[in-house]
Amino acid sequence: MEVKTYKKDSEYSYTLGAFPTIELLKTRPEIVKEIIIHSTFTDREFIEETACKHNIPIVSNDKLIGKLSDKENCFVIAVFDKFSGVLSKEKPHIVLVNPGNMGNLGTIMRTAVAFGIKDMAIIAPGADVFNPKTVRASMGAEFRMNIKYFDNFDVYKKEFPKHEIFCFMLNATSNLNVENCKHGPLYSLVFGNEATGLPNEFLNEGKSIIIPQSDEVDSLNITIAAGVGMFMFTR
Amino acid sequence: MEVKTYKKDSEYSYTLGAFPTIELLKTRPEIVKEIIIHSTFTDREFIEETACKHNIPIVSNDKLIGKLSDKENCFVIAVFDKFSGVLSKEKPHIVLVNPGNMGNLGTIMRTAVAFGIKDMAIIAPGADVFNPKTVRASMGAEFRMNIKYFDNFDVYKKEFPKHEIFCFMLNATSNLNVENCKHGPLYSLVFGNEATGLPNEFLNEGKSIIIPQSDEVDSLNITIAAGVGMFMFTR
Repeated sequence: MEVKTYKKDSEYSYTLGAFPTIELLKTRPEIVKEIIIHSTFTDREFIEETACKHNIPIVSNDKLIGKLSDKENCFVIAVFDKFSGVLSKEKPHIVLVNPGNMGNLGTIMRTAVAFGIKDMAIIAPGADVFNPKTVRASMGAEFRMNIKYFDNFDVYKKEFPKHEIFCFMLNATSNLNVENCKHGPLYSLVFGNEATGLPNEFLNEGKSIIIPQSDEVDSLNITIAAGVGMFMFTR
Repeated sequence: MEVKTYKKDSEYSYTLGAFPTIELLKTRPEIVKEIIIHSTFTDREFIEETACKHNIPIVSNDKLIGKLSDKENCFVIAVFDKFSGVLSKEKPHIVLVNPGNMGNLGTIMRTAVAFGIKDMAIIAPGADVFNPKTVRASMGAEFRMNIKYFDNFDVYKKEFPKHEIFCFMLNATSNLNVENCKHGPLYSLVFGNEATGLPNEFLNEGKSIIIPQSDEVDSLNITIAAGVGMFMFTR
């Protein structure tokens, strides 16, 4: 197959680097179309065995790796079919409203999986979950998640009416502490865009929560806020 | 003055963008040598007033801004003298052992100030706190901190013998929870390098703590671990 530089409307994407490639092969080998290995790459055993088991072609093409990757230390790339997710009705969710930055989006996926949250709703418009930058920032955690875009928050709520909603916002009414994050088994942790936060109308959705922070900074970085929030809800 | 592209041994550094420039002018106007404003930048009132009050020259030089900044949306740069910090003996500290990435370093500064920790020790070798990338990632929070490099951890401990030490490591003996992070007024939260974590010998320093996390990820990103740790200790 001829692999081209990633575009948002491509039917496939790719992993950049050995770590996310191995994660992909461990979790979703059935979607891998091809693996490209640099001629100087040595640690091939797991990749070659898994590729053989699942009939995945391996090609050696140093020039193509250079073309697809913007960093110098990339020696393995897997081309994979994009996949669509169905969120569990029986598990907690993380909901990102209009996330803008692919690095942040991937970092939040990595943190979510670390804390056992594997279902992510994205309220559109939002950054592209399949862009190789998102995949790389997630360190491959993305492949362990169910991820789905929703046109707006009402559509999401209608599909998951039993989830208790907690909105993280700077003008919230409750502080994040052990008492205020008591919850049943089904809940949704909602975070806004990195520059603008959640719009004011989210003050009327479920419970609004602020992570207490000094007014000497503008706000916490969204990945830190999501990390602290998920830790407190899942511990 | 002739402003050159940043080097680690330069005597000055610079802010990239209006936000960190304004933070610098609010907190340490006395170290600002010059402000460079793009001819198309309009929101000048606070910057011009503060510059006037502190006799800081303002120059307009679009070409120089292009040369110093690697991003397109930078319209203001302040050139400032590097400053050295003295850590408080009466406040908690964050200690970073061999931090490698300037973006992470800046993000941890921003989080630390948000949670009220303003004293940071860096055990050398460590990323450059004055590189413009670190300053930008800190969103200017760096200017509110006391930061000092130490040759090794023993030198740090000798200077601050009253600080209780808590080391965040994946092979720690205690989980992070309310009970395990009880502490007196003086404590040091110690985090390792993003790729390698803290060396095993830190298991013998004070109390070692792990943030409980799924084995489905390699580890939490260092900025997230530091954020969760600082939140739990300061709330």
